[in-house]
Amino acid sequence: MNDIDPAGRKKLIIIGGGAVGLAVATSVKRHSDYDVLVFSSDPHASYSQCGIPFVIAGDISDFNSLLLRSREFFEEAGIDLRTGTTVQSIDLANRTVLAEGENYNFDRLVIATGSTPSIPEKLRSGALLENVFTVRTLQDGMRLEKALLKASNTVIIGGGAIGAELAAACSRRGLNTLLVNRSSSLLSHNIDPDMADIVREHLESMGVQVITDYAPQALNGEDIVRSVTIGGKEFPADVVIISAGVKPETELAADAGIMIGPTGGIIINDDLQVKLTDGTYDPDVYCGGECAQLQDLITGRPLLSQLASTARRMAGVIRDNLIEEQSSFGPVISPWVAVIGELEVGTVGITTQVARLNGIDLVSGLATGTTSAGYYPGSTRLYIKLLFRNRILVGAQAIGGKGIKERIDGLSLAISKRTTVDEILNLETCYTPPLGTLVDPLTYAAKGALRKMSRVRK
Amino acid sequence: MNDIDPAGRKKLIIIGGGAVGLAVATSVKRHSDYDVLVFSSDPHASYSQCGIPFVIAGDISDFNSLLLRSREFFEEAGIDLRTGTTVQSIDLANRTVLAEGENYNFDRLVIATGSTPSIPEKLRSGALLENVFTVRTLQDGMRLEKALLKASNTVIIGGGAIGAELAAACSRRGLNTLLVNRSSSLLSHNIDPDMADIVREHLESMGVQVITDYAPQALNGEDIVRSVTIGGKEFPADVVIISAGVKPETELAADAGIMIGPTGGIIINDDLQVKLTDGTYDPDVYCGGECAQLQDLITGRPLLSQLASTARRMAGVIRDNLIEEQSSFGPVISPWVAVIGELEVGTVGITTQVARLNGIDLVSGLATGTTSAGYYPGSTRLYIKLLFRNRILVGAQAIGGKGIKERIDGLSLAISKRTTVDEILNLETCYTPPLGTLVDPLTYAAKGALRKMSRVRK
Repeated sequence: MNDIDPAGRKKLIIIGGGAVGLAVATSVKRHSDYDVLVFSSDPHASYSQCGIPFVIAGDISDFNSLLLRSREFFEEAGIDLRTGTTVQSIDLANRTVLAEGENYNFDRLVIATGSTPSIPEKLRSGALLENVFTVRTLQDGMRLEKALLKASNTVIIGGGAIGAELAAACSRRGLNTLLVNRSSSLLSHNIDPDMADIVREHLESMGVQVITDYAPQALNGEDIVRSVTIGGKEFPADVVIISAGVKPETELAADAGIMIGPTGGIIINDDLQVKLTDGTYDPDVYCGGECAQLQDLITGRPLLSQLASTARRMAGVIRDNLIEEQSSFGPVISPWVAVIGELEVGTVGITTQVARLNGIDLVSGLATGTTSAGYYPGSTRLYIKLLFRNRILVGAQAIGGKGIKERIDGLSLAISKRTTVDEILNLETCYTPPLGTLVDPLTYAAKGALRKMSRVRK
Repeated sequence: MNDIDPAGRKKLIIIGGGAVGLAVATSVKRHSDYDVLVFSSDPHASYSQCGIPFVIAGDISDFNSLLLRSREFFEEAGIDLRTGTTVQSIDLANRTVLAEGENYNFDRLVIATGSTPSIPEKLRSGALLENVFTVRTLQDGMRLEKALLKASNTVIIGGGAIGAELAAACSRRGLNTLLVNRSSSLLSHNIDPDMADIVREHLESMGVQVITDYAPQALNGEDIVRSVTIGGKEFPADVVIISAGVKPETELAADAGIMIGPTGGIIINDDLQVKLTDGTYDPDVYCGGECAQLQDLITGRPLLSQLASTARRMAGVIRDNLIEEQSSFGPVISPWVAVIGELEVGTVGITTQVARLNGIDLVSGLATGTTSAGYYPGSTRLYIKLLFRNRILVGAQAIGGKGIKERIDGLSLAISKRTTVDEILNLETCYTPPLGTLVDPLTYAAKGALRKMSRVRK
């Protein structure tokens, strides 16, 4: 048992050194006198996971650039940060955590264990071959980068956000790049098929070969991967990247008697406290990030989130509650944005597929525009899709050459404020030739939806 | 008297060939069988006035690029467009317009006469010198461009939007550029002094000399301008640009017995019909654009607008009413954006100065951020200022290297939906390293304002 702090300060243990864990540690330490101990299984601490594809693409010169805060920073802040350390168990009754054979007391505990990459059943043995990667940690990224230096043919399995970003990145490195996706549409968790087609065309225009509606059957090779079998055909591969989703890391919590929800995530309340098997919430044990089960604002259904921005907001709420500044976390609409080649792609709220699965009737409006006045040099295409339920905005998707992050943030506000199609139609938007068009495409998207609602002539 | 149309079609006369006039003409013609006759005093028709500074800057190669629709387009559309034609008078009793000595009947009339540049009293005689310009029409732009080819020293009088854009443009052409502004702060109608200082510093970093708190006393020269007297000192000038605001062009309307409001603009109702001296609104006479008096949503006060985007929205409402699709135009919050050198500058709602003049108590929050993750190459500074009245957003200003148009549009929505400081603080924003930061500066601006409201520790 470790020593009891002579000053009698409260002990906070944080399991996980990702976006939630280190944000809570740093902020709590700055605003209180907790003893803060962080366990992270990752050998590296405090880096931008989201930046990895951009190092692979060559936009960022090296992985060191992704390091945010040094080991010294945490030392000087008085945070006991144990990297490369796996927690073995949590004992809620005794308020201890077991790590490397030693028990550590806590008064308050934060579970921010994140998630681990999923590997499709059929590929599990093949995934043990050399040069087969999942891309999660900085170490993963570094190893991938090294392997890509000697590669010619890359196969990326999974056409979600990370898969699409990495496909663009590998293509920009001059590699033969094949992206294979189980379902018919890329980014199917994020955007509708018609919008995904724009991304697919862009990837193909960059030279990426895209195969959809096929799940790879096997990874082949001896020691080192040599090919991937897709639809009975072998495709050469020096490097394979599996980006087929993640599963929340909840074993520690489940073993400790914390409830796991239908999504596989840890059940929490609005204060981000965990639910126990007796149905109560532990007032001293918090959970945030990818391992937590959230609620979707539009459908009311439970969901998991891989968004760093959502994790960061949860960290803020956990921080507030730990330092007795009351704060709570509500249902989410999950605004998301990615850069795939030259395209910015974003979404917020529900997609048509999610609506269908939940029996929600939608009316959509899609508009095409440009990022500048038509006559302005460098103007690129812009696509905006709006989804309405009972005339209220519940989903929005945008693709274009610029401004997509800011558009999605604005549409996030629009959804959270329950904005009607008429309000969007009458929205005052600003204009200058280099930055947009006199009538914003948003207006046309709303007009398109309204036309369907009222079935009036064009 | 011109012939009566044998088909008995209704006659629509539009006075003004700018953003309102031609948009109404084109759209009405497409959706109805009005006879459409447009009088425009401008020899050129259908061009982007807002694009002129960007041709001067060299971003757009030539003025022909600004031409939007050809003379043939209007002919083929069946619109009788009379450019270079000045209307002499309107006779409301007889439903006629007098132009070039001839009377033209109308059933419906649209007054979209726009505005003309103001020239400060003291400079009126000097303004007659060669190489002294106001920049309003395409012809103005072409003449200015020609004069700049032979110029070394340019003096721009007036530090509003056009003045600042043109100062940046002249500086990019390699000219010695002096910008002189009567008040202490540039862009004083658009943004607060602290934000304007950022623009001033940027202009100075480009090599523009900025003099504030001085109104030029005289323009000197014989035939051709040679210098400008400012604060008793002579500054050399081969070219002088006067951009000291505009006044609405309302003489025709006033002479016809249409009411002019305290701003000098034509008084209109929500249907954009003009008010007559007997207090009624003429159901067949519409007015839109810079010559119309609008109402500010926040202060409730009358105002004029020079925004092309606002003019375009008014054109839509006039069009709807002309073709019997009921539509109305409400009070405005006037989102505005400009590109000044490398900076995008935007605003929406009221400024601190307007609040002060109207006795409105504001609490503000200002945040500085970056346009990408700190480690991402090419990241530039971003400034966001939010203004709240009783915790409700009533004004917002933003300056930065990208995404300002889209941010201002989002903040326009936020103001129109009466968004609270807490709602902005809890807004879900999206993140990817190339396009922003994990916590958006908007959050910090709201936090800054909230801190002042609750006077809690930092």
